[in-house]
Amino acid sequence: MIRIGLCGLGYWGKNLLRALSANAGIALVALADAKPEVREGLAARDRDLRIYEDATDLIGDPEVDAVVLATPVACHFAQARVALERGKHVMVEKPLCASSAEADELVARAELHGLTLMADHTFLFHPAVIKLGELVRSGALGQISYFDSQRVNLGLFQPDVNVLWDLAPHDLSILDHLFACEPVHIEASGHCHVNPGFPDIAYLTFHYPGPMVAHLNLSWMSPVKVRRIAVGGSARMAVWDDLNRDEPLKIHDSGITIHPRQDREIILPNYRIGSVTSPRLGGDEPLALAVEHFRQVIAGEAAPRSDGRLGRRIVRTLERAQTALDESLERARSAMACAAPRTVAA
Amino acid sequence: MIRIGLCGLGYWGKNLLRALSANAGIALVALADAKPEVREGLAARDRDLRIYEDATDLIGDPEVDAVVLATPVACHFAQARVALERGKHVMVEKPLCASSAEADELVARAELHGLTLMADHTFLFHPAVIKLGELVRSGALGQISYFDSQRVNLGLFQPDVNVLWDLAPHDLSILDHLFACEPVHIEASGHCHVNPGFPDIAYLTFHYPGPMVAHLNLSWMSPVKVRRIAVGGSARMAVWDDLNRDEPLKIHDSGITIHPRQDREIILPNYRIGSVTSPRLGGDEPLALAVEHFRQVIAGEAAPRSDGRLGRRIVRTLERAQTALDESLERARSAMACAAPRTVAA
Amino acid sequence: MIRIGLCGLGYWGKNLLRALSANAGIALVALADAKPEVREGLAARDRDLRIYEDATDLIGDPEVDAVVLATPVACHFAQARVALERGKHVMVEKPLCASSAEADELVARAELHGLTLMADHTFLFHPAVIKLGELVRSGALGQISYFDSQRVNLGLFQPDVNVLWDLAPHDLSILDHLFACEPVHIEASGHCHVNPGFPDIAYLTFHYPGPMVAHLNLSWMSPVKVRRIAVGGSARMAVWDDLNRDEPLKIHDSGITIHPRQDREIILPNYRIGSVTSPRLGGDEPLALAVEHFRQVIAGEAAPRSDGRLGRRIVRTLERAQTALDESLERARSAMACAAPRTVAA
Amino acid sequence: MIRIGLCGLGYWGKNLLRALSANAGIALVALADAKPEVREGLAARDRDLRIYEDATDLIGDPEVDAVVLATPVACHFAQARVALERGKHVMVEKPLCASSAEADELVARAELHGLTLMADHTFLFHPAVIKLGELVRSGALGQISYFDSQRVNLGLFQPDVNVLWDLAPHDLSILDHLFACEPVHIEASGHCHVNPGFPDIAYLTFHYPGPMVAHLNLSWMSPVKVRRIAVGGSARMAVWDDLNRDEPLKIHDSGITIHPRQDREIILPNYRIGSVTSPRLGGDEPLALAVEHFRQVIAGEAAPRSDGRLGRRIVRTLERAQTALDESLERARSAMACAAPRTVAA
Repeated sequence: MIRIGLCGLGYWGKNLLRALSANAGIALVALADAKPEVREGLAARDRDLRIYEDATDLIGDPEVDAVVLATPVACHFAQARVALERGKHVMVEKPLCASSAEADELVARAELHGLTLMADHTFLFHPAVIKLGELVRSGALGQISYFDSQRVNLGLFQPDVNVLWDLAPHDLSILDHLFACEPVHIEASGHCHVNPGFPDIAYLTFHYPGPMVAHLNLSWMSPVKVRRIAVGGSARMAVWDDLNRDEPLKIHDSGITIHPRQDREIILPNYRIGSVTSPRLGGDEPLALAVEHFRQVIAGEAAPRSDGRLGRRIVRTLERAQTALDESLERARSAMACAAPRTVAA
Repeated sequence: MIRIGLCGLGYWGKNLLRALSANAGIALVALADAKPEVREGLAARDRDLRIYEDATDLIGDPEVDAVVLATPVACHFAQARVALERGKHVMVEKPLCASSAEADELVARAELHGLTLMADHTFLFHPAVIKLGELVRSGALGQISYFDSQRVNLGLFQPDVNVLWDLAPHDLSILDHLFACEPVHIEASGHCHVNPGFPDIAYLTFHYPGPMVAHLNLSWMSPVKVRRIAVGGSARMAVWDDLNRDEPLKIHDSGITIHPRQDREIILPNYRIGSVTSPRLGGDEPLALAVEHFRQVIAGEAAPRSDGRLGRRIVRTLERAQTALDESLERARSAMACAAPRTVAA
Repeated sequence: MIRIGLCGLGYWGKNLLRALSANAGIALVALADAKPEVREGLAARDRDLRIYEDATDLIGDPEVDAVVLATPVACHFAQARVALERGKHVMVEKPLCASSAEADELVARAELHGLTLMADHTFLFHPAVIKLGELVRSGALGQISYFDSQRVNLGLFQPDVNVLWDLAPHDLSILDHLFACEPVHIEASGHCHVNPGFPDIAYLTFHYPGPMVAHLNLSWMSPVKVRRIAVGGSARMAVWDDLNRDEPLKIHDSGITIHPRQDREIILPNYRIGSVTSPRLGGDEPLALAVEHFRQVIAGEAAPRSDGRLGRRIVRTLERAQTALDESLERARSAMACAAPRTVAA
Repeated sequence: MIRIGLCGLGYWGKNLLRALSANAGIALVALADAKPEVREGLAARDRDLRIYEDATDLIGDPEVDAVVLATPVACHFAQARVALERGKHVMVEKPLCASSAEADELVARAELHGLTLMADHTFLFHPAVIKLGELVRSGALGQISYFDSQRVNLGLFQPDVNVLWDLAPHDLSILDHLFACEPVHIEASGHCHVNPGFPDIAYLTFHYPGPMVAHLNLSWMSPVKVRRIAVGGSARMAVWDDLNRDEPLKIHDSGITIHPRQDREIILPNYRIGSVTSPRLGGDEPLALAVEHFRQVIAGEAAPRSDGRLGRRIVRTLERAQTALDESLERARSAMACAAPRTVAA
């Protein structure tokens, strides 16, 4: 029985509380939250819980073997570092931390001390992602030509993460799971509607060594929620609509074959359009599987699937994407400042 | 009765043939196509038709008052210029021509001679676009924050247009109709899967003077066809799915209101989620309306809705987008050449 | 604070346990279930709960003001009668009881003693049903011509209710809410696939005094779940698809107008096809609203919306439908016994 | 080259005109229609056509080898009989004729003279029906337990066919193709909203020798068109939604297995829920295939798939269904006349 302390009872912290409580191999022994009313509610619920105002105090509690951090991203690094120093295993809500330098240090410390450092990229435990991974790796889709994600909704604006750091980690963890490589080059653009300098819409294009291009359309400005990922290959195409209850994943037995260039002006690809299959996916909740995976890795029962290095790869890509996005926004700003607007009269 | 000659009987030319034949105010008197078997089929169909191998001969035919050009884009400029020189009204399949310099000359000649020059941007006559225009201009959507178009399918690869010049004119004509202004700044990225240097996927971001950003996701590589345009505003959001037979246009009575900055770290917008309405749209075929509009403009019965200037604005934006896309592809190429691929091992 | 005891912790009983526990005006003080493991689980959960093996003992507990019965239908009558005799208010899972004679007695006793007798027809508290009721009663749909329900899924076969008694109460409660009248005539047919004499598919046609006909297609044999109710009127048509998460209720501004008979062979109706609207529905859980309504009625704060008389009307219609179904099945059996099957060879 | 004459240029006749004209092995030599404006339009279109006012005159024309009848149902018998007497092959729009006695005579005459008599049940040539037939006959669906059809729309009220005779022939031809047997027993109910004694809604239940039950929900009163057929078996379930453009046919790898009765009160079936597959269907137009089939049967190139005997089986079932429907409507009428309406006050 692993004794776990949970820091942060906000939106995702509440889900973690539920998942940790439901795991038979985990004893949730301590909770920390800065808000007094949250602490009072927790105390009333279970008298045996050790309740803290300050996450650092919880981390220092000797009754705690491992900590789960669902605190603001800006706090992840300091809290995780203290926890690793005290010999505690750590699971951190995505993203792992706020910079690749921070990630380097956390990974190094965890490896030095032989502790489990897990980034909570819950989608790695989603049955549709696992199925997509099987399709990609088995060659069922053929050679992948593109990954296209639309992830838009009304955003929960937070002070310390913009739309890129809020939504892209999901796609980056899925891309890492499917293709096991980082982009060679990143192009980005976006817009700041609500807070200047703080993008609420971001469009990202990732170039990889092979023929694959990935595109992410991320937005906090859409009243209609969309969660759609398409993965196109030479043999088949998969479309995952996470909001489709009945048939979330569809595999189109359709593809594009590109023949070697013959003696003609342009290459005409061959198309094939076939049937559509929607496999039945497992019904386990991804977060419950993620929490159980954290327990198993600590207990030495499983090899880590979402370790600190994966968390670091994602933070590294976020950092690069942020740079590309900043440059693009700056280009746009300059153009807006200089140019007289062209109008219909032109 | 206006006597019209049609040049080019390819994919779109056949549709124009049908639409021109069905219009009671138009006499389709002449046809030109380079392929002998096409000319033979036409001759068998109607003995009174004047049939030409060479478009220029048709254009010179004194029995022809106006010409419709459904020829390759590379031919548009020369053929349209000759037609205008001969005093013929011209309707040109989109895009109007291959460069803004060409467009400048065509517009100047048409205006000099008082002739009708119409770019066949058929979507301007689509009931959903007309309805969207009413929603934008009446203020029903509030202040527009974004336009998002996904236009993907298996492409008909052609030697003289890439995916940008093939698909973007649709969105550009719709943007022009809705917002009556050209982008101040364009960001682009994309990929060439099939033919080097010839993009088959393009992602475009347009910045405008106001708070609106527009994004186009264009692809010839998707076995699943998508035709979805979302227009989000502070008061309502409209989503047009052109493949939804029953309810193609949905107006979500949902919006985001951004309040002036108070004394806090970030602005939190107000959200409102309401009902969804799908208005009944007219059933007239857009191409039939476009052809009738050409006739009316020639006859002085209507002011032009899709004139040479509109066609020029779209060619100008295509040209700028192509430049941005070329630069982005070059950046990606350089990065690929230099960088050692980062892999999972990192 | 009303002290409530809950009898029966099966599928629906567990939902009632959750809803009763969450209601701040209700003290759930006692539970009864025949299964020892269920009782043990409950005892471990809360030491203050009074736990019984036998529902009758719970009903007799003087600490209990009101009982909620989620026991098998065959037990409803005896348990509810005892509860009313002991002066307890009663809420009974649908259907109220197994015959109209039983229902008569329960209604009479409740009225004699001035006690609340409520049948748990949860759909009466569903936002879509409430909206449909407003549409019907306000005249927005015009004169109603038909009600069509398809309610099919894989059935939970139980010994004491067939598909009619399991699924029809939902539609009957909705019909009662919308139209406030019982059918004048019932036609039925069906089939027994799994257990002889025990229908697992039933088709019902209800004739009413006015021009409305209602049809119910009920099945336990369909792997694909369908929950679709259409209500057609002269002015508008409403379609409620309970499995459509985003737009469960659609109001089609389309209708059929029947003009008085002119001097021609048959009457040709006028059709009108217009827009479609999907109103935003409230998000409260119907069962929570039903439980709160039970509390309010007991406390004298609300007039009953689902009282014993409503429960009786539904049992009465079920009884009549069962008779019609039995007759139809007997006709089919006779025909099968007598007739030599006609085959393709004929 | 078979010389064909077409009688009747109404809604379906126009489709037949198009299909007959497009068939390279058929010479459409003669047309008949009672309306002068229709005849004038046809004459203008093709000067070589032999055009008649009276279908009987066309049938007697020695230049005609075979006739296609798209005339009102009431005329089918007399016209087809004359045609067969004159030695002409006949294709008749569904239903074949108005009674089984008429059908008997037509079948006898066609067989006596060795002529082709084909009922135009176009759905027999629909790729989804052909696929369903393969699924049923190959055993892929397992033992069939039910067939459920919903076929509702706004009706084209005609003087000589009610909703049963208009819509049921489609389902009856599909049932005949899938199961090759006639129902042993028929239950029916319905309603007459527009014209007394002339049903515009009909509900039919067919009992067959085996465990299958079929249900048809037919309506002319629904503004929302539905064309949905579900076929459920022990191994799989197929759902055909004819209005779903992308995935009209879905095969659910889900089923119900009924085990032999053990020593318990009721049998509990086993359920299995699996993936969903949407096979790619051929794109040929069913009517074009039907017309070509007529040609092939006449030419001795194919065995008939929709002959007079099939047409007769369907008319026979329609006749029996009409009787059951009449009886049901009479029961409802009597009940309405006698009973005082029960109201909420009861």
